[in-house]
Amino acid sequence: MKQEEFPILFRPAGRTVFVLAGTSLLEAAARSDIVLQTPCGGAGHCGKCRVHIADGYGNLADGRTGYESRRAPKPGAVLACVARANGPMTVDVPAESLFETRQQILTGDSGLRGALDPHVRQCRFQLPPPSAQDTRSDARRLADGIEGLATMVPACRRALPAFLRRHAWQGAATLRGDTLVALDPPETTKAAHGVALDIGTTTVVATLIGLLDGREVGVASALNGQTAMGDDVIARIRRVREDPDELRALSAAVRDTVNGLIHELTMQAGMETQSVLDVTVVGNTAMQQLLCGYDPSALGELPFVPAFERGHALPARELGLDTHPEADVFVFPQIGGFVGGDTVAAMLAARLDQSPAPTLLVDIGTNGEIVLAAEGKLLATSVAAGPAFEGARIAQGMRAAPGAIEKIVLADDIRVNVIGNVTPTGLCGSALVDAAAAMLDMGMMDETGRILAADELPAALPTALRSRLREADGQPCLVLTDRDEYGPDAPAVLLRQKDIRELQLATAAVRAGIAILLRRAELDAADLDGILLAGGFGNFIRRNHAQRIGLLPAVPSERIRFLGNAASLGAKLALLSVEERRYADRLRDRAEHVDLSLDPEFQNEFGAAMIFPEP
Amino acid sequence: MKQEEFPILFRPAGRTVFVLAGTSLLEAAARSDIVLQTPCGGAGHCGKCRVHIADGYGNLADGRTGYESRRAPKPGAVLACVARANGPMTVDVPAESLFETRQQILTGDSGLRGALDPHVRQCRFQLPPPSAQDTRSDARRLADGIEGLATMVPACRRALPAFLRRHAWQGAATLRGDTLVALDPPETTKAAHGVALDIGTTTVVATLIGLLDGREVGVASALNGQTAMGDDVIARIRRVREDPDELRALSAAVRDTVNGLIHELTMQAGMETQSVLDVTVVGNTAMQQLLCGYDPSALGELPFVPAFERGHALPARELGLDTHPEADVFVFPQIGGFVGGDTVAAMLAARLDQSPAPTLLVDIGTNGEIVLAAEGKLLATSVAAGPAFEGARIAQGMRAAPGAIEKIVLADDIRVNVIGNVTPTGLCGSALVDAAAAMLDMGMMDETGRILAADELPAALPTALRSRLREADGQPCLVLTDRDEYGPDAPAVLLRQKDIRELQLATAAVRAGIAILLRRAELDAADLDGILLAGGFGNFIRRNHAQRIGLLPAVPSERIRFLGNAASLGAKLALLSVEERRYADRLRDRAEHVDLSLDPEFQNEFGAAMIFPEP
Repeated sequence: MKQEEFPILFRPAGRTVFVLAGTSLLEAAARSDIVLQTPCGGAGHCGKCRVHIADGYGNLADGRTGYESRRAPKPGAVLACVARANGPMTVDVPAESLFETRQQILTGDSGLRGALDPHVRQCRFQLPPPSAQDTRSDARRLADGIEGLATMVPACRRALPAFLRRHAWQGAATLRGDTLVALDPPETTKAAHGVALDIGTTTVVATLIGLLDGREVGVASALNGQTAMGDDVIARIRRVREDPDELRALSAAVRDTVNGLIHELTMQAGMETQSVLDVTVVGNTAMQQLLCGYDPSALGELPFVPAFERGHALPARELGLDTHPEADVFVFPQIGGFVGGDTVAAMLAARLDQSPAPTLLVDIGTNGEIVLAAEGKLLATSVAAGPAFEGARIAQGMRAAPGAIEKIVLADDIRVNVIGNVTPTGLCGSALVDAAAAMLDMGMMDETGRILAADELPAALPTALRSRLREADGQPCLVLTDRDEYGPDAPAVLLRQKDIRELQLATAAVRAGIAILLRRAELDAADLDGILLAGGFGNFIRRNHAQRIGLLPAVPSERIRFLGNAASLGAKLALLSVEERRYADRLRDRAEHVDLSLDPEFQNEFGAAMIFPEP
Repeated sequence: MKQEEFPILFRPAGRTVFVLAGTSLLEAAARSDIVLQTPCGGAGHCGKCRVHIADGYGNLADGRTGYESRRAPKPGAVLACVARANGPMTVDVPAESLFETRQQILTGDSGLRGALDPHVRQCRFQLPPPSAQDTRSDARRLADGIEGLATMVPACRRALPAFLRRHAWQGAATLRGDTLVALDPPETTKAAHGVALDIGTTTVVATLIGLLDGREVGVASALNGQTAMGDDVIARIRRVREDPDELRALSAAVRDTVNGLIHELTMQAGMETQSVLDVTVVGNTAMQQLLCGYDPSALGELPFVPAFERGHALPARELGLDTHPEADVFVFPQIGGFVGGDTVAAMLAARLDQSPAPTLLVDIGTNGEIVLAAEGKLLATSVAAGPAFEGARIAQGMRAAPGAIEKIVLADDIRVNVIGNVTPTGLCGSALVDAAAAMLDMGMMDETGRILAADELPAALPTALRSRLREADGQPCLVLTDRDEYGPDAPAVLLRQKDIRELQLATAAVRAGIAILLRRAELDAADLDGILLAGGFGNFIRRNHAQRIGLLPAVPSERIRFLGNAASLGAKLALLSVEERRYADRLRDRAEHVDLSLDPEFQNEFGAAMIFPEP
């Protein structure tokens, strides 16, 4: 059934998203990549996700604002987790409601463990000129005039004598730790910037940040250039295993992607790429190793040994990055062959070790990373969920891109939400979860994942839904949108029995992983005080649907919180404070790597998890 | 008067030197660049300079062996400071008599402050392969297997995964400090070597040393390629001041010289230049800065500010040196614009701060560096002696090269010793000192340096000498060798009145510098327990002659000791132990730089020092 979608405009980000009637503003914001604070898990208690409806207040579903039991701070204020849209709206998001605000404006009580203390800093100096009584060397004179300066890169040593005399013993110094890396004339307006990189298998996200004030200057993303050389991590590792020369090609591909983003960001900000003096990198183990040029072949064979564990810096020049020639690249520590720097970065952003009660961090993707923090321990593992959540191996599956059905509601009939408000051409992972959960609830599918035959369906099932259960390609399927339903030549989008099987495999892997970690810690799911969802997919799924199919444990849903892109946030924190880098290494050292490929219980758990849970 | 010279062959060095009758074996050895131990100052007391006359024992002058008052340890044994040659000899020099022996064989009680502890070391490793129970990363596994390994250069990080698997988890690791810089297969026979560089304004000396055992593999020297771009330091500094682009050309010139030496040494040793994994550099301030590419312009203007003070390392790659790509170059600390790393290195080699009583370190050249160690203080200065000691500005002056008269004895007539036993074509600095001292003693010259007229000469002056005082170019002169005296077409070599004036200027500068340091320390020359002569010229001059003209203070001559090439030795020590590098920095920090250009007393002292001292 063609369902009307309407636009929600979020300001000041200026992003518009199309949603179905009844969508919460929290969900709508998340789909616009705007992650709001929800310490109460979106239960309407804490009041942290407050937004203002500037236009379209009358389209509020049921008139619920979340302020029913108290006074709204000002007219138009609503809690995004409570308020649902029934029509177009313009919504203002105050900075303090943003999840990342704490870090974006690093003044006062920031999210950093300490103060703004980036690895690269800049300062002005004015030195007394030499005299008969003061014949200190140039290097000593500068070191005496700049606190914390201990040494210099050769280029600065070379430039120093002429520089000091040309600029009357004044200038701007850029230090990397205790090392002088750049000298600029006193009148310079150049400010040191850094780039935080989140290298995904598919998408690379780069954030440009001013190192003097910690402010985010811009964000850009691009398709990882390696995608053309293999869709997933395993394909790329295999490529190197088959021909070691391919390592260079894969490294070059992602390097070019990163350089493109650096150019884009600096051009937009009106600065030179030379202004980029520091870089931090998070990514899964294979992505980090490929960027660095470290052979990932061992990740393709048991026991999946990573090249390194500790975070470390490499010269950006060595990696061929278009930055200041003296910039360093800090690569995040990694826990195992499939528990990488992105997981450590998410742990860092979440301050996972400081959770007062058992907390689970889950990042669902082709590879699902799961970390359990409990009683001073950090148990980390990964499961091969397969690409079902990202739309692959699903007959009409696709990524969460325009044309993808991203949300499905089953009631009298099917309502779908399509990304970009265009003709639907497929479905993405979150819709798959929605559909499976709803089919279980409506009695259209049994716990084994079998789509029921017509004579097995409950009598109460609405006729429209009943008629959408058909057969195609010799298997039962659910017709999400019929041919021409969305206009002439619109294709039918079907959910097939085989797609449900793929979903079961993916879900069972994550579920078994969580079960084994809980068992190792001698905990039940009910003991979990929080489940933190990191990564793109985590932002999109409906928590209750994920729980219905068993992807997430059955805890009160307010305990499930969205972290947003926690890996990127970790990369930004490391850019802004060296203490965060040390913290990341400490988290890595404390983490115990649980290798499920070696766990005799895993197969049993996995098999059991293939059965959907009871409602 | 043509005087017979005869050869002395020193073994095992295999060097032959031609000497006049009556020359001590100590002096002959020094002229062969063989510096013997003389802690007693060559007074025949200590017995440390023992050598064996293998052939020509009968040519011992007066039969004196130095063992008159005790038993010789074996037949043929003599003390080199006592024994004088009256004819050809073959002399065996035992290793323990060599000044540098302590450092050349670094086993047991070496001259190093600590054990052999080079900045670069090599070790073998064998690691347990990964297993299901042991999934440590490659980097962690290696760090666990090699003591002191903390990090790696990017090239090693890149190579590591494939290397370990190809070589069954075994290999040879080369570490620079706590950093892995090279990986070699387990069967490698390559051993890490280092090169100690002594960059002189005229001559560059390179010593190739094995870093595993501290053994000297070879020594080579070459003319500094910068010589073509200016004879002395001042000319080269001026060149850069006039055209900053010349800095690059001067740096390239000495770099090419150094690369030539590295190629020569490694080829002779049958190894690749890649085996050179560490380099240390000593030189005067301008030479060190030019090698490093640090602008020396400020050394050409008051108050002569050096670019740096502390010793530091630069990547050899940055300097364009043909070594292993990960080799570092350690540049010695320097005290002032004209008290450079060579002086610090000589202080280091002499352990100058550990002298129990006031000690003077003197390195005489175009620039004379003087350091006084007294009562816990180190006073360092330099004087512009001018190039007279090196033969320049002397009408027939030349460097100590074949054809140079290097020694002059005045008795009944003149006897001269010519380097290489060839036709004399000029005279070098040591002969100039000899001649002036003898002319003073014989009454041929007065204390003001004036060569006396015929009617002023003492009646007892032998006729032959009297006849050698003539006039040439309108000035009095001493005919050292007459035309055809050394064979047909042999030129006359004359010492002119003007040459004596140049010698006076050079001598006065050194003498005034020493006087001012002594005054600062409130000491008299008689308080000096030792005078250590460093550098090439110091090895050649006759101590009593240097004292006679006032170049060295009037102390008992056994207190004057030759250090040999102490700067080179300092460079070697720094190659063999990082503690020596720290020690060099401590010496530099303890040294007080006395800038004579700013000292109001200097001009007076200098003027007074123009008058030769009373006998």
